[in-house]
Amino acid sequence: MTERLLPENLDFNGPFPPLSRRLRLGVVGGGRISDTQATAARMTDRWEVVAGALSSDPTRAKARGAEWFLDTDRCYASFQDMAQAEAARADGVDAVMITTPNHLHFPAAKAFLNAGIDVICDKPLTNEVDEATALIDLTEQSGQVFGVGYAMSCFPMIRQAREIVAEGRIGKINQIHVEFLQDWMTPDDVADAPHVKWRLDPKISGPTSCVGDIGTHAAHLASFVSGLEMSDLRAEFHVCGAPKSLEDTAFMFTRFQGDVPGTLMATRLAPGNRGGLRLRIYGSEGGLEWDLENSEQLQFYRFGEADRVISRGQGHGVSAATERLIRTARGFPEGIIEAWSNLYTEFAMAVAARRDGVVLPDGWVSFPKVGEGAAGVHFIAASVRSNEKGGAWVAI
Amino acid sequence: MTERLLPENLDFNGPFPPLSRRLRLGVVGGGRISDTQATAARMTDRWEVVAGALSSDPTRAKARGAEWFLDTDRCYASFQDMAQAEAARADGVDAVMITTPNHLHFPAAKAFLNAGIDVICDKPLTNEVDEATALIDLTEQSGQVFGVGYAMSCFPMIRQAREIVAEGRIGKINQIHVEFLQDWMTPDDVADAPHVKWRLDPKISGPTSCVGDIGTHAAHLASFVSGLEMSDLRAEFHVCGAPKSLEDTAFMFTRFQGDVPGTLMATRLAPGNRGGLRLRIYGSEGGLEWDLENSEQLQFYRFGEADRVISRGQGHGVSAATERLIRTARGFPEGIIEAWSNLYTEFAMAVAARRDGVVLPDGWVSFPKVGEGAAGVHFIAASVRSNEKGGAWVAI
Amino acid sequence: MTERLLPENLDFNGPFPPLSRRLRLGVVGGGRISDTQATAARMTDRWEVVAGALSSDPTRAKARGAEWFLDTDRCYASFQDMAQAEAARADGVDAVMITTPNHLHFPAAKAFLNAGIDVICDKPLTNEVDEATALIDLTEQSGQVFGVGYAMSCFPMIRQAREIVAEGRIGKINQIHVEFLQDWMTPDDVADAPHVKWRLDPKISGPTSCVGDIGTHAAHLASFVSGLEMSDLRAEFHVCGAPKSLEDTAFMFTRFQGDVPGTLMATRLAPGNRGGLRLRIYGSEGGLEWDLENSEQLQFYRFGEADRVISRGQGHGVSAATERLIRTARGFPEGIIEAWSNLYTEFAMAVAARRDGVVLPDGWVSFPKVGEGAAGVHFIAASVRSNEKGGAWVAI
Amino acid sequence: MTERLLPENLDFNGPFPPLSRRLRLGVVGGGRISDTQATAARMTDRWEVVAGALSSDPTRAKARGAEWFLDTDRCYASFQDMAQAEAARADGVDAVMITTPNHLHFPAAKAFLNAGIDVICDKPLTNEVDEATALIDLTEQSGQVFGVGYAMSCFPMIRQAREIVAEGRIGKINQIHVEFLQDWMTPDDVADAPHVKWRLDPKISGPTSCVGDIGTHAAHLASFVSGLEMSDLRAEFHVCGAPKSLEDTAFMFTRFQGDVPGTLMATRLAPGNRGGLRLRIYGSEGGLEWDLENSEQLQFYRFGEADRVISRGQGHGVSAATERLIRTARGFPEGIIEAWSNLYTEFAMAVAARRDGVVLPDGWVSFPKVGEGAAGVHFIAASVRSNEKGGAWVAI
Repeated sequence: MTERLLPENLDFNGPFPPLSRRLRLGVVGGGRISDTQATAARMTDRWEVVAGALSSDPTRAKARGAEWFLDTDRCYASFQDMAQAEAARADGVDAVMITTPNHLHFPAAKAFLNAGIDVICDKPLTNEVDEATALIDLTEQSGQVFGVGYAMSCFPMIRQAREIVAEGRIGKINQIHVEFLQDWMTPDDVADAPHVKWRLDPKISGPTSCVGDIGTHAAHLASFVSGLEMSDLRAEFHVCGAPKSLEDTAFMFTRFQGDVPGTLMATRLAPGNRGGLRLRIYGSEGGLEWDLENSEQLQFYRFGEADRVISRGQGHGVSAATERLIRTARGFPEGIIEAWSNLYTEFAMAVAARRDGVVLPDGWVSFPKVGEGAAGVHFIAASVRSNEKGGAWVAI
Repeated sequence: MTERLLPENLDFNGPFPPLSRRLRLGVVGGGRISDTQATAARMTDRWEVVAGALSSDPTRAKARGAEWFLDTDRCYASFQDMAQAEAARADGVDAVMITTPNHLHFPAAKAFLNAGIDVICDKPLTNEVDEATALIDLTEQSGQVFGVGYAMSCFPMIRQAREIVAEGRIGKINQIHVEFLQDWMTPDDVADAPHVKWRLDPKISGPTSCVGDIGTHAAHLASFVSGLEMSDLRAEFHVCGAPKSLEDTAFMFTRFQGDVPGTLMATRLAPGNRGGLRLRIYGSEGGLEWDLENSEQLQFYRFGEADRVISRGQGHGVSAATERLIRTARGFPEGIIEAWSNLYTEFAMAVAARRDGVVLPDGWVSFPKVGEGAAGVHFIAASVRSNEKGGAWVAI
Repeated sequence: MTERLLPENLDFNGPFPPLSRRLRLGVVGGGRISDTQATAARMTDRWEVVAGALSSDPTRAKARGAEWFLDTDRCYASFQDMAQAEAARADGVDAVMITTPNHLHFPAAKAFLNAGIDVICDKPLTNEVDEATALIDLTEQSGQVFGVGYAMSCFPMIRQAREIVAEGRIGKINQIHVEFLQDWMTPDDVADAPHVKWRLDPKISGPTSCVGDIGTHAAHLASFVSGLEMSDLRAEFHVCGAPKSLEDTAFMFTRFQGDVPGTLMATRLAPGNRGGLRLRIYGSEGGLEWDLENSEQLQFYRFGEADRVISRGQGHGVSAATERLIRTARGFPEGIIEAWSNLYTEFAMAVAARRDGVVLPDGWVSFPKVGEGAAGVHFIAASVRSNEKGGAWVAI
Repeated sequence: MTERLLPENLDFNGPFPPLSRRLRLGVVGGGRISDTQATAARMTDRWEVVAGALSSDPTRAKARGAEWFLDTDRCYASFQDMAQAEAARADGVDAVMITTPNHLHFPAAKAFLNAGIDVICDKPLTNEVDEATALIDLTEQSGQVFGVGYAMSCFPMIRQAREIVAEGRIGKINQIHVEFLQDWMTPDDVADAPHVKWRLDPKISGPTSCVGDIGTHAAHLASFVSGLEMSDLRAEFHVCGAPKSLEDTAFMFTRFQGDVPGTLMATRLAPGNRGGLRLRIYGSEGGLEWDLENSEQLQFYRFGEADRVISRGQGHGVSAATERLIRTARGFPEGIIEAWSNLYTEFAMAVAARRDGVVLPDGWVSFPKVGEGAAGVHFIAASVRSNEKGGAWVAI
């Protein structure tokens, strides 16, 4: 291959480099989250959206594609067609974003991997543990790049938190608490809305609703920042609002590597909470607190010292690695689309590196990968088992 | 009795009235919390501290009493002597504040009740369930007034929250979360400090340390504001820091009347948290959030409307009943000593009413009473049973 | 005098000591602020209120005095009678609190000083510059103790801020901004209320209304924390709401020693602001920010480092001198009555020291004194002169 | 012209529509702010950057252009060449973004207007009042679209604030306070940095440094939200840090239409402040407060009611017009790049409408235009005149 995407003499200490061309991105799934992610991908200027399976209705697929300026012949009505056709093109997509309802994550991801196309897939990775394992196997065999949509882990202050833990600045971790509270399911009739219905249908959403959708974000963040795998949990599911086929609320006790205890909570019926994702990690020397609605600040405590607040920006307690993920000066707020954009930038680096045959140095990019996606599926499955056993402890 | 303490034509809609004389207060226990409560009692100008058993060492008892300007002959070295002597005086104490280590709450309270003296006792009310029951029986027989030191329930914004729930403004409650996080036990050697040691000695502290001291505040608040009794719980105890004879951390799932689920968390090893007492109640139409470190504000959400913040003060969303518990204008902060002072004011009204033979209208005073203290003892005992059974559900 | 109030071997590094007896306090003026201050004085347990001129109507004076348990013969209907009678008593008041409307501050203070009684007087100290000078002269001649009610300077975090400035930790000060915003005069008809009327009557309130009442708090705080005297100002007065005889709003540019520039703003028509007193001091190496509604926290910035928040309590960045002014542990909030109480404690130390003939070490107590009160009167007078000259710069 | 950019049956009550093709954007100026704006433009998916004059050094211009995937022949070394060449192309740019140092804003804008190309220009619009007038004249003659980079006015919560004022919900405005505080010029040597130097050079930066750069943002916001033009001001300039040719700090009293008073403050030497842009508007019935670092929330007070916080999102107090400017659900934060993106979306609508010959309904787009840019130049010039006259009142 004569094309080289990454610069020849790449400085791994500097900012992420521009690529020699924009990578070509396909999109599978036409809902709101695909808009957010496509926007984020465009922001990076390292991706252009060129193909899509945005609806199973061919007319809608084309109409939606037109809004994104896709060529008509690259507006597909099925991901199977798309995988096949794009793989056959010289200018086929470099990677595909999968943002369908949950039950299609697996077949779609598999189809594109088999077609040699890299994948970035929304969470939960799959509805079944076996499927997740199969995706790990496929990527290990092919060496393909597989990203998972745990975008919360791409906020600069989350990266900073992780670095502080890794450096031992809060000492030995003694407990970990995460929660994700929302309120949009509060009205009794919301479950009947078309864009909500599938989230409560076990055939589509999988074995859980709230746990798989938002609980899994909380679980990922806990492990990502602490550097500790969650090993066991006990869970109880609740339907706090109108009757539903799946839980709208779940409470858990958790256990991490080294017997570190914790709690996890997820609900969609907590009026006043919208982006109520909160992380709290405490250790023998200090603590860290972060929440999504104040994503630009990281609370950092060292026992015995004045409290600290680290603000996203350059310097002032922000590390060089964190600075690589910022766009604007401290005090000029970034948000969640920028976090998604960080995910797409790091994913672009990995996709380019694979094509260039470049091995990236450890830790240069930290976007969530298929293994983390599979850990989320195991977490969900364990929570279901525990709940069925009346909240017994189960290994994940 | 010719003396009348309350005004003859008391207007129950106005502010709490002055009394015809200051009530006489005795103090049992000489630690820091007795200072706080005595200060709060003085603030009301309805109490004067006139007697004390401030140390079992007679010399220390007198020295400490001198700092409070007590007459030497009213500085006792034992609560037994004090109960007997004060009961015999024409100008004996009207009531006694008990702020000893936990294991003495019961014998001290019993001694004063038997001497006909009203009691305000710190929490946990007793170390044993039987003892709590005995105190209920004693007060029911004698009609004496018995307050318990759940001072958090005397913050004006907590009263406001309770009123909002009672009026149905958050709809039907669907979940309740409380937590009390502190960090002062973070250093490994703190448990050896003299004023800490007894808190980790089961013979003194009782069957728990952290649960009985701060978890019980959280449990009381949950019931006080929601108006729902906690019926069941499952609890796991942890020692997150250096080895100890009793837990320093506990996580619980809880269940309230009407099958309302919740969580409760208490720990002393969460660096960055000091007064980390937080209450969150969610319902079918709205939610309420309050935390001790921002005690002057109450977050109040009505689903579908702009968020509201009710600030302590007059009007602007504050009810007349709440206004009875304030001293300064909105924006001129009050704190926890003022909450204690509210408790002592309401307690004074009840003590005066008993002496005057006046029956107070329902809800005019809401200070925590012996029944709530006993509920706390049952809560503690249930958490111990659950923890011993590996976190099984137990009825409280 | 055989009586000794302070301990013989006073440790000036420890907490403020108890006195050998409670000091006797008289109160002149019966409004809401006298309640707050009397409550604060009681909290210290170093003062007892024993006499009062609480109303010029003898019947009301007695009724109000009865609520405070004053002896009937010490409920005076004029401060002149009170000064004379109390000075003649063996158990006469040690000091008097003056909380009358402004125009009586001077004659009342003078009467008590002449009677040999120490004084604590509300701000503005006097309505005329000459009167303020006269009070300074009187105290210098007699050596009497004279405190002024700038209670904001007695918040622990304000003292901490002052210490940080003095230690050079924000470098050389480059600008100082203070403001005090309230909203209670927003309704057009509020000025007609009886307790408001006098505040807008130049014969009673003096040459200003808003500036003298709240602007002077802001000015005092700026100098107190920065350690710099305000030397010049330019001021414009406004009536933002319904027509009034005196300003309800004022904006100023200010200049401090060493040509440090600043701004000052005061208004009572800023809806949403109640205790909107904010202090911001910036220097060549860092900055400090504090506001009354979050009085327990001090924002402390060192350029190039993570932001810091110092919370009232022990340690964790709080100095030993600051700790002397606290009652409760970090996270268990104190408020403005506790700030007043600090003022009354320090005032008590000074009153006791004068009686004992003890010279207190420099800086041991920092309550605002008559010189600071006079500086406030000069500030008010300068703002009036500037406003009359169309906002010209005038020396203070 | 057969090409139609806007949809035929455009629903002005719905979201902003997609265009039939991406508009072509040129960029003049290669600094950091051009990155931010180009990113924002890409986010809209209504613009593609196709040409640039990114450096006056041809080699650098091409290198920088390559990073943005520009064709080599559209990487110009001067804006004059670019205007000429692009105007001559069939696929020439539809509009140009001008982000050069200040002194080039005028000649560049003029060149592109004369070439028939629409313009979006950074603030301050020009360094001279005459130049600003000339640009107004040019656009009035040609009917061209001219946007100005007051991006702060494109935050959804700022639009919501403006709507609340317009609806009379805070009553008659009585005072307006704005400030923009930063800290990056705190170190003495920062002024020597290459990217800073020009900002302190009057030949490039114009007659002011801090006022023109950030003070003008504050001034624009005050008028934009209040709906009142600033008519007069008095200003004092300061150099608070190391000596400089231009001010680094300025304080102002301001006057708006209808004699509404206000204050304005701008500085770059306030450690701890980065995006310290704050707006406070008070009226006879309520108040509004907003600050850049908490851009997702709007404080809204109605006197006598509980405080309100309106959060960006759908419903819950957010109007339909505001919703048009949002991407993510409430609680999932957006930031300043999204505000810029709103500006580029509205600008795209106006550019497309001009090309389509469509007259947009009043108020459908509210991006800042050349008249507002000129008002900013008048504001700057007035502040200079006032400062030279010792802070005298001057008409703007």
